[in-house]
Amino acid sequence: MRLADVPTPALVVDMVAFGHNVATMGAVNPGRRLRPHVKAFKSTPLAQALAGAGHEAFCCATVREVEGMAAAGLGDDLLLANEVLDCTRLGALVRAGNARVTVAVDSEETVAAAAVGGVREVLVDVDIGLPRCGCDPADAGRIADLARARGLTVRGVMGYEGHLMRTPWERKVAEVEEAMALLLAAREATGGDVVSAGGTGTYDCNPWATEIQAGSYCLMDTEYLPHAPAFRHALFVWTSVISVSRSGWAVVDTGLKALGMDHGDPTVVGGSCWFVSDEHTTFGPDPSYPVVVGDRVTLLPGHVDPTVALHERMVVVDAVADGRLDGDAVVVEEWPVDLRGW
Amino acid sequence: MRLADVPTPALVVDMVAFGHNVATMGAVNPGRRLRPHVKAFKSTPLAQALAGAGHEAFCCATVREVEGMAAAGLGDDLLLANEVLDCTRLGALVRAGNARVTVAVDSEETVAAAAVGGVREVLVDVDIGLPRCGCDPADAGRIADLARARGLTVRGVMGYEGHLMRTPWERKVAEVEEAMALLLAAREATGGDVVSAGGTGTYDCNPWATEIQAGSYCLMDTEYLPHAPAFRHALFVWTSVISVSRSGWAVVDTGLKALGMDHGDPTVVGGSCWFVSDEHTTFGPDPSYPVVVGDRVTLLPGHVDPTVALHERMVVVDAVADGRLDGDAVVVEEWPVDLRGW
Repeated sequence: MRLADVPTPALVVDMVAFGHNVATMGAVNPGRRLRPHVKAFKSTPLAQALAGAGHEAFCCATVREVEGMAAAGLGDDLLLANEVLDCTRLGALVRAGNARVTVAVDSEETVAAAAVGGVREVLVDVDIGLPRCGCDPADAGRIADLARARGLTVRGVMGYEGHLMRTPWERKVAEVEEAMALLLAAREATGGDVVSAGGTGTYDCNPWATEIQAGSYCLMDTEYLPHAPAFRHALFVWTSVISVSRSGWAVVDTGLKALGMDHGDPTVVGGSCWFVSDEHTTFGPDPSYPVVVGDRVTLLPGHVDPTVALHERMVVVDAVADGRLDGDAVVVEEWPVDLRGW
Repeated sequence: MRLADVPTPALVVDMVAFGHNVATMGAVNPGRRLRPHVKAFKSTPLAQALAGAGHEAFCCATVREVEGMAAAGLGDDLLLANEVLDCTRLGALVRAGNARVTVAVDSEETVAAAAVGGVREVLVDVDIGLPRCGCDPADAGRIADLARARGLTVRGVMGYEGHLMRTPWERKVAEVEEAMALLLAAREATGGDVVSAGGTGTYDCNPWATEIQAGSYCLMDTEYLPHAPAFRHALFVWTSVISVSRSGWAVVDTGLKALGMDHGDPTVVGGSCWFVSDEHTTFGPDPSYPVVVGDRVTLLPGHVDPTVALHERMVVVDAVADGRLDGDAVVVEEWPVDLRGW
């Protein structure tokens, strides 16, 4: 099938750029030194491709993601890198014996939830500077003791230096080292081998972590690319022009129901975005790229993760030239986005 | 079941507020004077409730919505109020005989698509001031003639004064009249009985339309409410506190994958939103509402339409007091969000 035959709107993955991204990341963080974050793509066939590249341990953000990965035979070492109040479904996976499941804990309540639910392994989640989950570094030893007292194995610590992903390079290395010093000190208190941290923005400047939790690098988006320029846009939205006004604007059939908007408007290749409605994007075509009704237009999403969560599938094409999708591209695979929901 | 037993994150509809909204709209626009817009809720059981209140003609934004409504037995009079380049699936519904389908056209290409696909009835979509779809008003007669020449029935015109939904009341009536004058003049040229226009923001000041296309009024959101204050918040997001920092912030288990963000951050009832991540919202709890891990917190989404599109279902509860969900509320129904995708 050619891309021209794919109904719009559609998420499209450039196989070549995806391959470049996987190779680039793998060169720095090979095998289990990388724990790819499933939340960025929510698709087990994509995860399978990463496992094929040697990354067999994965990171998840929801119970549904863990369940789906286990069901797809990718349950070798699944970390739910988030706090969970009801671990019943995770415990069921552990008891069924087809997945190794580790969950993050940062409080007495989340330790209790892991123990009661039947999860046997935990990482102590430590606040290393991003105001989100994670215990005070000074409290990590106490949380680990609580976990062991409930019969849980403490595999180590995790932390996310998310506040540093967009820090200019000249300051980034030093500030990551500072954040990681907190995490390493916490690990002294907790015990365990694992120091899980990092992301696409720090994949090449965090030697202190034993494993990097990166996901966005696989597909990338307009917001993240300047902060991790070794990677390439591999995710596009394929749209159709449904209306052209004599007054100079045009409209494609793709809007808020197909685009994560928290990082702002999508980039219209060959035009400038005016505004986005539920099922429309109104844009001004570049004078050098006039459009007519029926033309296809390429959008670049502002934020890959919530964009993916709005789609049922991605189609993978063999080539994208000059950052613009072409109807002659060959669809080589279809990847269901099968890990949505909770 | 009580709401306390519903896993988070969950979309929750307040049955009482929903009933108020339906009654308020129905008092102004009874029966077929209202054509509820399915895109705002994407759920056939909710549409069934509106049909039960006398509104049996519906408006859709996607082919999938039309198909789902027809399959649910709600195909009495379905308008796809959007331009469509491939009407094959719509034509199949018409041929199957279980739905009356009308599609918007604004160009020679969309007229041809309707004719080729097998749709038999159209409305001419006219640009009345919002830079999106719709032909130039002066071109409406020509489009109608093209449609009739292809054997299509022209039921009339549609236009959307979307640029006026948030206009202050003292100017709104006059500006709506001006926009509608364009549409009425176009109808003179096209023929047909239908003048389909309007939305939640102009539901009570557009007597020129023969039918009002409103959807947001059913559930409402924080962005729209000030512009249509007769309605009430009927949609909430039920979340759980998964982490509380000693430094003063807390985190719920609900983020970008559960909230449409194009109108900005959600409102945290009992706190102030700091920022939203994929599966987290970090917030500052009000001093009068301290939280502990495991507490439930109510969010109000900024934009109902894209929020709904991220969920598989809504649960309907019997009561919401003081704008805050309560675990003791009784779940009276579950409505699948069964019209997602394209």
